Amino acid sequence: MKQTILTHATVITVNEQNEVIHDGAVAFAGSTITYVGPTPEDVSGYDEVIDLKGNYVLPGLINTHGHAGMSLLRGYSDDLPLQQWLEDKMWPLEAQFTGDHVKWGTYLSLIEMIRTGTTTFVDMYDHMDEVAKAVEATGMRARLCRGMIGLCSEEERAAKLEEATDFAKNWHNQADGRITTMLAPHAPYTCPPEFIMQIVERAEELALPIHIHMSETKWEVGQNEQDYGLRPVAHLEKLGVFRRPTLVAHAVHLTDEEIDVLANYQVKVSHNVVSNLKLASGVAPVPKMLAKGISVSLGTDSTASNNNLNLFEELKLAAILHKGVSYDPVAVPAEEALRMATRYGADGVFQPDALGSIETGKQADLIVLDSHQAHFHPAHNPVSHVVYAANGRDVTDTIVAGRFLMRNRELLTVDEERVIFEANRVFQTLKR
Amino acid sequence: MKQTILTHATVITVNEQNEVIHDGAVAFAGSTITYVGPTPEDVSGYDEVIDLKGNYVLPGLINTHGHAGMSLLRGYSDDLPLQQWLEDKMWPLEAQFTGDHVKWGTYLSLIEMIRTGTTTFVDMYDHMDEVAKAVEATGMRARLCRGMIGLCSEEERAAKLEEATDFAKNWHNQADGRITTMLAPHAPYTCPPEFIMQIVERAEELALPIHIHMSETKWEVGQNEQDYGLRPVAHLEKLGVFRRPTLVAHAVHLTDEEIDVLANYQVKVSHNVVSNLKLASGVAPVPKMLAKGISVSLGTDSTASNNNLNLFEELKLAAILHKGVSYDPVAVPAEEALRMATRYGADGVFQPDALGSIETGKQADLIVLDSHQAHFHPAHNPVSHVVYAANGRDVTDTIVAGRFLMRNRELLTVDEERVIFEANRVFQTLKR
Repeated sequence: MKQTILTHATVITVNEQNEVIHDGAVAFAGSTITYVGPTPEDVSGYDEVIDLKGNYVLPGLINTHGHAGMSLLRGYSDDLPLQQWLEDKMWPLEAQFTGDHVKWGTYLSLIEMIRTGTTTFVDMYDHMDEVAKAVEATGMRARLCRGMIGLCSEEERAAKLEEATDFAKNWHNQADGRITTMLAPHAPYTCPPEFIMQIVERAEELALPIHIHMSETKWEVGQNEQDYGLRPVAHLEKLGVFRRPTLVAHAVHLTDEEIDVLANYQVKVSHNVVSNLKLASGVAPVPKMLAKGISVSLGTDSTASNNNLNLFEELKLAAILHKGVSYDPVAVPAEEALRMATRYGADGVFQPDALGSIETGKQADLIVLDSHQAHFHPAHNPVSHVVYAANGRDVTDTIVAGRFLMRNRELLTVDEERVIFEANRVFQTLKR
Repeated sequence: MKQTILTHATVITVNEQNEVIHDGAVAFAGSTITYVGPTPEDVSGYDEVIDLKGNYVLPGLINTHGHAGMSLLRGYSDDLPLQQWLEDKMWPLEAQFTGDHVKWGTYLSLIEMIRTGTTTFVDMYDHMDEVAKAVEATGMRARLCRGMIGLCSEEERAAKLEEATDFAKNWHNQADGRITTMLAPHAPYTCPPEFIMQIVERAEELALPIHIHMSETKWEVGQNEQDYGLRPVAHLEKLGVFRRPTLVAHAVHLTDEEIDVLANYQVKVSHNVVSNLKLASGVAPVPKMLAKGISVSLGTDSTASNNNLNLFEELKLAAILHKGVSYDPVAVPAEEALRMATRYGADGVFQPDALGSIETGKQADLIVLDSHQAHFHPAHNPVSHVVYAANGRDVTDTIVAGRFLMRNRELLTVDEERVIFEANRVFQTLKR
């Protein structure tokens, strides 16, 4: 098994102690980290030695909510009221999507994520075989699920659940374990209660987690109360969702009591800070959730509401937004924001033992940042620089399971020129 | 005079009509734009023809508030309450600053700005001769002022005003007109009223604008009411400040009536959206100011409270933040955000006829973005992609007054490696 060591690096481990190792090294054999510590004097036992000359090494970032195929609709519509945006713009185009549209939209997304240092992502969409195949081909890591909207006939719902089940079974632990799956009722307001209960039952049978949108907008919370006499958290609790390990996306409109319920069930939350602002959904109570011990990770949502997948934007914005809107300059400090993008993301994909920090025995999902640039200086506080000054485009190398997907800014597993060509070609086939 | 033409570009003019020219061209002779339109068939009359192959050309961005020398304190302190941050961290270090510290801090800033597409910036600081010399040497454009804090003896105040006057006189319209100046009382809470009045009088004599911090924090507004029985806007109006062309930074805490006053006097506002969030100051009422016709431009503030000078971050955040906090998805649309970073910035530096858009007769301050990347596709709406998807690191070329300061991502007027070395050297001389 090939043994690689990255030497003379500033290693930002994001371990329990927030350790930063100057002149540090990270070694891996196959997909697994075998050494983290000072740069050893003797590296002759390694097959490959890469001198990083002081550049930063971090755990790869984890994006816990998105719809990669929707990158095909990037910039197609912005700056509209939500319902108009969905009903007049997004849904009519998505209704025309074939596997080919999802494939090339997903490849656009994969390129962006690899370039900006994301090594694991969560995806909830349709035509998920295409997504899984693209993940397999590019070497990325992902937790995937077929999103089920239940506003249709019982037969159609049953068919969707079978499709979601087949996908979840077929792809779980595939691609050398880089692909895992979940079951995903789309949202409480798009799924009848009995459908959600069927999905929970199926998730129990398959021993898989649940992923669901929840409490994204005020409108949705009001609708839930009107339809079911309960706010979304109590509604989902009643339906048994939280008996399964659950990752909820958004969680913008929550009462303190609802936060307690989520904390008690150890529900994981994906904070989609850019998307929530752009769609005028509001600001999630992140400091309160973190204070209750909830693992709040970061998600981009799709590029239709973002409009990119550069998780460094979420990282910085999560660190500054909650300070500004709560008048609390110590809310979400840099170290905590970095945990949201890494460790808590590992919790969000239910793989805390394998991902989210640079530690021996964990997967070698690593990124390298070029710190030989003005905005990383004076060389004082690397974590501060990563959170507040850096950018996704500072990433020079992206490694997943010990394999370089990008090296010295060159993509190694995907042809960007071809993807751009094909994405534009299939976009042109859509009736607008 | 050398004639250059950029051809086959997507020209985002930011002119009155928000015109975007596909397969367009921009020509300039010396420092002045001489042609904007479709790519001509015959370009044989030009000394240099640069085929941009569909890449985007935009007016250079304008950063209307900052303290470039403070980049020496990037990452030195974050996540602290404001007064503790200022009194325990910033001020003790700034008190040790010599011209050398300001020089190398400013060079760090200039590199970042050139790399991320800023072509004009406003700077208010001390040791301003060093700032002006760096601007002159690098080819940047700037509106500069010596910031005057009046919490000192009358003699010291007089000395500061003379120094500020000398600087303003010596450097106004220097560096081939790229440097202009202003007078800058630091803030209403740091300058006694009579000192502000003296500065206004001097600005009248010199026919120069005023630049001042105003209404950044709730605390400051309360303090002003306590000290002078007036909120800051009425206080500055009473002191005659707004009789001069005035650029105020921050303007976070404003009543509707204060917005009307600012609009009536045509006061220009620099919106420092990242800094206001990071320092927990709050969210400025930008949509209301824009609706009243106020030129609201974008400022980074210093990297001590940002922590970079990548104005594309302000551009996107200005477009999404106000949607999110006001639950209004049509607040600050993409075109308006782009005007804030360009045209309104030209208003903010009081040069609307020379800067802020790509139009014949204006200065050739231009930037090129590499649109041959996944996150610029599908190639649907260039303005949306610039505001919501792009990043400062997509800038490949930065041109000021017809001169390339960066070409194909290579800096042409500054040695980054040396600047990083010197900045770290002088940072180490500070007692911490």
